[in-house]
Amino acid sequence: MSGKKPINIGIVGYGFMGRTHSNAYKRVCDFFDVPYRPVLKAVCGRSEAQAKEFAERWGYESVETDWRALVARKDIDAIDICTPNNTHAEIAIAAAAAGKMILCEKPLAMNMVEGQAMVDAVEKAGVPNTVWYNYRRVPAVTLAQNLIAAGRLGKIYHYRAQFLQDWTISTDLPQGGTGLWRLDAAAAGSGVTGDLLAHCIDTALWLNGAINSVSAMTETFVKERKHTLTGKVEPVKIDDACAFLCRFENGSLGLFESTRYARGHKALYTFEVNGEKASLRWDLHDLHRLQYFDHADDSLVRGWKSIHVTDGDMPYMKSWWVPGLQIGYEHTFVHHVADFLANLGTGAQTSPTFREALATQAVCDAVLDSADARKWETVVPV
Amino acid sequence: MSGKKPINIGIVGYGFMGRTHSNAYKRVCDFFDVPYRPVLKAVCGRSEAQAKEFAERWGYESVETDWRALVARKDIDAIDICTPNNTHAEIAIAAAAAGKMILCEKPLAMNMVEGQAMVDAVEKAGVPNTVWYNYRRVPAVTLAQNLIAAGRLGKIYHYRAQFLQDWTISTDLPQGGTGLWRLDAAAAGSGVTGDLLAHCIDTALWLNGAINSVSAMTETFVKERKHTLTGKVEPVKIDDACAFLCRFENGSLGLFESTRYARGHKALYTFEVNGEKASLRWDLHDLHRLQYFDHADDSLVRGWKSIHVTDGDMPYMKSWWVPGLQIGYEHTFVHHVADFLANLGTGAQTSPTFREALATQAVCDAVLDSADARKWETVVPV
Amino acid sequence: MSGKKPINIGIVGYGFMGRTHSNAYKRVCDFFDVPYRPVLKAVCGRSEAQAKEFAERWGYESVETDWRALVARKDIDAIDICTPNNTHAEIAIAAAAAGKMILCEKPLAMNMVEGQAMVDAVEKAGVPNTVWYNYRRVPAVTLAQNLIAAGRLGKIYHYRAQFLQDWTISTDLPQGGTGLWRLDAAAAGSGVTGDLLAHCIDTALWLNGAINSVSAMTETFVKERKHTLTGKVEPVKIDDACAFLCRFENGSLGLFESTRYARGHKALYTFEVNGEKASLRWDLHDLHRLQYFDHADDSLVRGWKSIHVTDGDMPYMKSWWVPGLQIGYEHTFVHHVADFLANLGTGAQTSPTFREALATQAVCDAVLDSADARKWETVVPV
Amino acid sequence: MSGKKPINIGIVGYGFMGRTHSNAYKRVCDFFDVPYRPVLKAVCGRSEAQAKEFAERWGYESVETDWRALVARKDIDAIDICTPNNTHAEIAIAAAAAGKMILCEKPLAMNMVEGQAMVDAVEKAGVPNTVWYNYRRVPAVTLAQNLIAAGRLGKIYHYRAQFLQDWTISTDLPQGGTGLWRLDAAAAGSGVTGDLLAHCIDTALWLNGAINSVSAMTETFVKERKHTLTGKVEPVKIDDACAFLCRFENGSLGLFESTRYARGHKALYTFEVNGEKASLRWDLHDLHRLQYFDHADDSLVRGWKSIHVTDGDMPYMKSWWVPGLQIGYEHTFVHHVADFLANLGTGAQTSPTFREALATQAVCDAVLDSADARKWETVVPV
Repeated sequence: MSGKKPINIGIVGYGFMGRTHSNAYKRVCDFFDVPYRPVLKAVCGRSEAQAKEFAERWGYESVETDWRALVARKDIDAIDICTPNNTHAEIAIAAAAAGKMILCEKPLAMNMVEGQAMVDAVEKAGVPNTVWYNYRRVPAVTLAQNLIAAGRLGKIYHYRAQFLQDWTISTDLPQGGTGLWRLDAAAAGSGVTGDLLAHCIDTALWLNGAINSVSAMTETFVKERKHTLTGKVEPVKIDDACAFLCRFENGSLGLFESTRYARGHKALYTFEVNGEKASLRWDLHDLHRLQYFDHADDSLVRGWKSIHVTDGDMPYMKSWWVPGLQIGYEHTFVHHVADFLANLGTGAQTSPTFREALATQAVCDAVLDSADARKWETVVPV
Repeated sequence: MSGKKPINIGIVGYGFMGRTHSNAYKRVCDFFDVPYRPVLKAVCGRSEAQAKEFAERWGYESVETDWRALVARKDIDAIDICTPNNTHAEIAIAAAAAGKMILCEKPLAMNMVEGQAMVDAVEKAGVPNTVWYNYRRVPAVTLAQNLIAAGRLGKIYHYRAQFLQDWTISTDLPQGGTGLWRLDAAAAGSGVTGDLLAHCIDTALWLNGAINSVSAMTETFVKERKHTLTGKVEPVKIDDACAFLCRFENGSLGLFESTRYARGHKALYTFEVNGEKASLRWDLHDLHRLQYFDHADDSLVRGWKSIHVTDGDMPYMKSWWVPGLQIGYEHTFVHHVADFLANLGTGAQTSPTFREALATQAVCDAVLDSADARKWETVVPV
Repeated sequence: MSGKKPINIGIVGYGFMGRTHSNAYKRVCDFFDVPYRPVLKAVCGRSEAQAKEFAERWGYESVETDWRALVARKDIDAIDICTPNNTHAEIAIAAAAAGKMILCEKPLAMNMVEGQAMVDAVEKAGVPNTVWYNYRRVPAVTLAQNLIAAGRLGKIYHYRAQFLQDWTISTDLPQGGTGLWRLDAAAAGSGVTGDLLAHCIDTALWLNGAINSVSAMTETFVKERKHTLTGKVEPVKIDDACAFLCRFENGSLGLFESTRYARGHKALYTFEVNGEKASLRWDLHDLHRLQYFDHADDSLVRGWKSIHVTDGDMPYMKSWWVPGLQIGYEHTFVHHVADFLANLGTGAQTSPTFREALATQAVCDAVLDSADARKWETVVPV
Repeated sequence: MSGKKPINIGIVGYGFMGRTHSNAYKRVCDFFDVPYRPVLKAVCGRSEAQAKEFAERWGYESVETDWRALVARKDIDAIDICTPNNTHAEIAIAAAAAGKMILCEKPLAMNMVEGQAMVDAVEKAGVPNTVWYNYRRVPAVTLAQNLIAAGRLGKIYHYRAQFLQDWTISTDLPQGGTGLWRLDAAAAGSGVTGDLLAHCIDTALWLNGAINSVSAMTETFVKERKHTLTGKVEPVKIDDACAFLCRFENGSLGLFESTRYARGHKALYTFEVNGEKASLRWDLHDLHRLQYFDHADDSLVRGWKSIHVTDGDMPYMKSWWVPGLQIGYEHTFVHHVADFLANLGTGAQTSPTFREALATQAVCDAVLDSADARKWETVVPV
């Protein structure tokens, strides 16, 4: 580690994403040869007790309870934002003004207006910035992108994606509070659209280019839930489910769906791309497999291949174990940090940047508008 | 066979469906105890030579080249319509007027106007009538319907279906003529909507009830193809692909898609239904398997079950072989005939009747209208 | 049918196999262009009532209750033997002496001594003869054989097969009698070895050549069962389970297992072959799929392919439907009859002949001997 | 970490297993609440340069080049043995004599004689000892063991396992040297038997109890390979493939196979257990899934369940992420360390101990003896 330059991390938030990011910082140098080493300088959270406990477990050197104080610290190089969506913009804009690098959880913002302000801030400040759309860095997903970019699928006709969960079916589940802010529109901005479809859209834009127009529908199956902050039964304002049709810039048709009411699916993010020459599909429940069909194969032995993406010539995999042995969900964050640190060395931006994430926000906004208006909406170009 | 009453079949058309129906008539009494036995009385087609060859192979007693002559024959009890879609209405209405039972290939008609006239004709004539939506009688699909009807899924939240093919990707493929009339709007009425989505919609209505409204998009990827009848390159007027969102009467959300440009899929009809208590899914490429998830299962061993629908207590299966040994695609037509003949004995109608198939037509019409108008359309109630 | 020569069938036995064979005779000319057409001349069984019922259902012209009378009839061209194993030899030898063609259910005989006498009889008589090892004619299995024969796998290292069932786990199940003679050593000769492993061995010899030596173990889990013929609880003398190691002539290693105590498996016949260049595997529960791995594929997209064996260029499939639509278990018998009738036209023998089936018997005998003696046994060459 | 007692680790070997163990020590306290925290005190290897590089990357405080010096150090609490098999015994016996805890890579030893001496040494010294049979701690495998131990399968009839690889098919691959000592009998003792079957046997003994007798065959397909240490082409003395039949103490039958010549399989460790009431199976390529069939399920919806072992009530999983998100191969080692450290707190031994691993060694020895002698061998009881 002696030859690596330190990069001091200040993280805001110590929930689920706080854990995955912290883990990524701690593991990256064990597996990747990058010119920087992350130093866990400070964790910031409203509860000092919880922040201390988190710091103790993960090895953060210090604790803050006000993110403004964290942003003001001279010894912090990078601000990592892991807080609920409604706080991203304020923190990011302040961090940019303070000249910090920023790694922000997805979705970028509550809406395009906020998102545009964030993009303006980081671009004006000229600071490295990236958004944690981690599924891009599942090796099988990266491989999918590489195959498409190399032209293996030819002209694309169809793109379809879904993100299915079932954890909010029970009407007993409250909204708001730790772990449940995703059901509270005030904190989350939207329901499955920003939480889950945003992932699907980010991948789609990366694999298949811009989306021009959308027609969407949303539904809230459980109309009222107890709010943990107020203690009262209050209307649920998020979308429990959302589906949309779309047309891509390249002429292909898209179909997207997400719900938290698909009994039997825990986190079934899937996508499939059909091209003139080949097709591919992937799902998060078996994230190390890519399904691939190549029409050019000899017709007697033509079929869908199940590619077990664990070999050393697959994206990111030479840094891990041996063929046949797979890695886990959290390794996607390790890959993201590895790319971020490598790019720091070369001055390249780390995709998706705030600007790239704004394009996803534009689609999300158009989707929610379309569902409200019950008509096709044009996506604002970014 | 001595105790079985003969029912004399006159079939119009000797293409793909002519074969599946003929096979069904010939096999049904080997496996099912029904009170009637089909007699292959006559096959009718415009080419006398081809009709004779078909009659020779399948054992039809006689040949006709004019369907009007067939309909006029006193020795024919039932007319089976296996011709392109643009001829269904005229033949069916004449057959009804002649007091014949009618078994009509799907889709019922070119559009609702035609379809309504057909329904009026058979209901006025009081003749047994049914439409060959054969996938209802895949044992796994029948089982799915039975499970839903028994309330095992509870309240339904989501229904999704797709029918994916890839056989028209080549631009060299002509439109029109034998086997290719499905690409000719004049003969087929529509493309994948009437050909493939009609199957998906029929199953959906049977499993999940009425569809109220739809938002659709269609695309024709290959804009011109040589027409085999005219010899000229002509615009392609069918939909190569169609996808739609919908809302069901029961409050659930629907998502449907069909295309002939999904490289790698031959005839991948799939559906999935998510209910409060359980979910199920099925696909035609492995048509004897039903996937089922029951939330009530002990959580330590809870997961999606792959039910191999071959046991004797499964729908239709006690008539076939032994557990583990599956049947084929064409057996669905045998089941349809078996049900039709059994119902003749009791006077019951055989589902789907013309009226039930008209409801599918209503959805198809709304889908095509919605795609044209780029807006949500209400489905006309049947 | 006018141009086809009739071939008069006399079938002995009207159980499960009587049905599959009768169905094959009735379907073959609807789908295959063969120079002969089977005529269902007579069915023979000990129970006249059951034989009449069977004749009525399937369309046999006459009934016999003594197989000797059937064999003596001048109007019978071919004898089809569907009776329990302990009767095959006597009937076949008499039929050969009477100059009849013979289609015999598998396994060929109770043991090699009987089998050798049967081979001698048909070869001396010069009559067409074949044994119904039907799984050779599953299109995916035929394709597997074709791929291996074409050298696509290169040198073979490993062959493994299993046939797993679970239908005899209950101790309440009796032995002997209709459908249960398979549990009675006097009628069946052995248990899973002759019933199920014989299938695995026949396929293996066809795909991978001769087996030289074996080391086996057998077990009878339920030691006593009520005998339906005697009404008494009697020792069970068949093998409930059998597994063996073997060495093939070509240097590859083999591993075979069969049982009727594998809870959850109905008729799971699987095989896998590993070669230097490629591997393949298949299973009966999804019998239309062949799994194939080709090491020569581009390493970035290398994986196991699931080949859906339904296209027109696949073995036997051009006679059936369209790509994506699969056929059933019983079509393997149709294919067998189609090949038999085509071969009658050319004078070729239809594989597997009695002699080829004797080689399977030789392996079965060695397996049972090895299990008894608890040592490696050499297989008697045929 | 302040409240956790340090435990100073001295690791011998810096190869593949050196990485997995080091990773486990570094991760365990981030995820598991254990009373001890591992301190990476020293890494020992013959190459000082490589040992230093390893220490630098993983954070070991010091480097040794002679394991005797490491064992002699007062500041080392536990010796972790990651060296080739032929060195395990000497190091372990010395470490035991020095009163160190020992974590030894599998297989325990070159043979039972060595293994017995190791067991004697650790038991005499009374030091905590464990062998890294890591697959026991795949959550799905632990769940399988729990289900069997709870009696859910009832009486066991069959156990089968295989471990298939294809990495040594090329004749260009040399034997001996870094990463290739597994092909050198002098270093490895045996080929697939000790390397791969040992894993299968360890799991089998844990899930299904003792093995009494075996009948095995082995093969060396490539007879000569260049030796990297001598530079000469030398005979290959390891087993490239090994298969064996066995009988368990509980009356069930076993079938095991391993090879490095199964084209298309990277590390396909699979096992299946068939019981009277239920069956289960698992494979390493999709290691987070357990397949389970329960005969008690309602027959209409009975089938094999695919259990995605990621929920919080599954073994080890509450320490990781959320349902649907899987973990990687290396987490099995984290679980092993977590259990080891938890047991240190209570004084319990951590399974498998040296004595338990000796039972696996006994089966391996019997297997190799049986293959040599071509006869059934009795397994020496441990």
